[in-house]
Amino acid sequence: MNARKAANELQYRTLLHNDLEATKALLLSSCHVIPVPVRGPVEALINGGGKRLRPAFLLLVARLFAADEERALLAAAAVEMLHTATLIHDDIIDNAAVRRGIMTVNARWPATAAVLAGDIVFAQAAKLIAQTREPVIVERFAVALEVICLGELGQMFGSAGTIPTLQAYLDRIFAKTASLFALCAEIGPLLAQYPDEVVAEARRFGRLLGEAFQITDDVLDLRGDSNETGKPVGVDLRQGLATLPVLLYRAGYPDDHRIEAILTRSADEHTIESFIQDLRCSAAVDQAMGYADARAEEALSLLRKHPDTPHRCALEELVHFAVDRAY
Amino acid sequence: MNARKAANELQYRTLLHNDLEATKALLLSSCHVIPVPVRGPVEALINGGGKRLRPAFLLLVARLFAADEERALLAAAAVEMLHTATLIHDDIIDNAAVRRGIMTVNARWPATAAVLAGDIVFAQAAKLIAQTREPVIVERFAVALEVICLGELGQMFGSAGTIPTLQAYLDRIFAKTASLFALCAEIGPLLAQYPDEVVAEARRFGRLLGEAFQITDDVLDLRGDSNETGKPVGVDLRQGLATLPVLLYRAGYPDDHRIEAILTRSADEHTIESFIQDLRCSAAVDQAMGYADARAEEALSLLRKHPDTPHRCALEELVHFAVDRAY
Repeated sequence: MNARKAANELQYRTLLHNDLEATKALLLSSCHVIPVPVRGPVEALINGGGKRLRPAFLLLVARLFAADEERALLAAAAVEMLHTATLIHDDIIDNAAVRRGIMTVNARWPATAAVLAGDIVFAQAAKLIAQTREPVIVERFAVALEVICLGELGQMFGSAGTIPTLQAYLDRIFAKTASLFALCAEIGPLLAQYPDEVVAEARRFGRLLGEAFQITDDVLDLRGDSNETGKPVGVDLRQGLATLPVLLYRAGYPDDHRIEAILTRSADEHTIESFIQDLRCSAAVDQAMGYADARAEEALSLLRKHPDTPHRCALEELVHFAVDRAY
Repeated sequence: MNARKAANELQYRTLLHNDLEATKALLLSSCHVIPVPVRGPVEALINGGGKRLRPAFLLLVARLFAADEERALLAAAAVEMLHTATLIHDDIIDNAAVRRGIMTVNARWPATAAVLAGDIVFAQAAKLIAQTREPVIVERFAVALEVICLGELGQMFGSAGTIPTLQAYLDRIFAKTASLFALCAEIGPLLAQYPDEVVAEARRFGRLLGEAFQITDDVLDLRGDSNETGKPVGVDLRQGLATLPVLLYRAGYPDDHRIEAILTRSADEHTIESFIQDLRCSAAVDQAMGYADARAEEALSLLRKHPDTPHRCALEELVHFAVDRAY
């Protein structure tokens, strides 16, 4: 794969510069209705903005299908707004004080204000997506929200402290990440009235990219250099969450019961560190990256069906970035 | 006005029997996706169901405009689902343990599960409204959610302990109650493709009914017989909320500073009871009902423009019920 790039070096940043500025303007103007005290942290969350991967991805795919640009922009803002709303509610659930380096809504105000702030941001997302005037897209949008929340609720009531099956793991990362990428990818062909099989293939492309991203994220949590990622190693494990490398490791070492002790939080720090060390040295981490790479390869093969344009090229780069990044 | 009727004696119950059963079936089937532990209290909330005033009102108005019945049913279920979602999030905000005689989601499970349960119910509402295939309705639906949440957030950050102006009071009851009735009333003519001025008049009809309901509610909170309403008297005041009777009383007795003491919760029980007694004996309560009656009268005059059908008749009865009920 390509030489490793930082997110801010990716082509889409230049190619979509005006579109992403327009998306940001739509997002910020949607926030104007929110009362001032709560608006601050919501605007800061939007301005902090991360990599704007979802709207950029949606816009790039929409260009492949020559979808109407104005409606694609509305959808891109809607998806980012939906993502923002889920972050606000997530931060209540995780009792998080900081996100993207800024104080969360629930850290500044009572959690109840954060519930309402999230709801208002949902309403803004729904208003934006309704403005695409495409009922099928609105329905898919609502389904994506459903899948994301069901995934979180399932995790909350799921069998914590146990190792999931591969299917349960894939379902979880679909709900958490890939469902929204799948939505982003299908909006372009839906706007341009392509037939169902084309929409389904675009959706599959989005899902593959989302899965590749999330599997890589889960690997980075174990393999990452904490100096580069800015995060401690093994956060998921320490929170009782077994990801793909762990379940692949278990297949090779069925009798290593440190895993259960760690997942049920009954292991001491020494056990955790020695297990993470063994896991990092095992084949499981590379095997897990194999799952991510396979998805990236399939995504690239789907892309090759499209003409070789700068937008396709930026999407190829995004697929490479999904599996070959430092954070 | 008519002799006082109980909600379960109203004609719409018979007239819409099949439609309301179909609405309930749609609501319950929408809940099937929710994981079992959380589904219980959500289903109980839907089965408890109250008077189903909002879907009944939507369906009756839709009939006046001969709107497509299947799409009106979807919208009726969507509105009730939206209302249910706001109740689930409200119960977190109010830290309520019981609603409609059953345990709330947040009393059975951590508040974080209730946040997600409410979000999933929002998603179901959005899916249902998207199925009407009418983008304008989806947008109005999202705006109603926005208005409701902004109203609550405004109240949370508003000047608690102070007496609102008449306009601020009317804005508050619009956000809390009348906005959803206005949405219910405009959906029928929107589905049937009526011109904007007809939609706006239907919307006004819904708003008037919603305001009449809420003003009456606020009066009942002070005047109601706690044996009949099942609630203590003066709950709003005790929670620091000044409603229409209080602000009208203040106009007549500008120097009665017990109000501020009660609203800032610095009054003792004796002061609260003596003030409520004086308020009940004052002209303010009847004056407040005058505001409700005036809205009911205007709503009835708008109804008289329609042919005299059983559905119009049921709507007239609903308007009378709004201002002449015991609870």
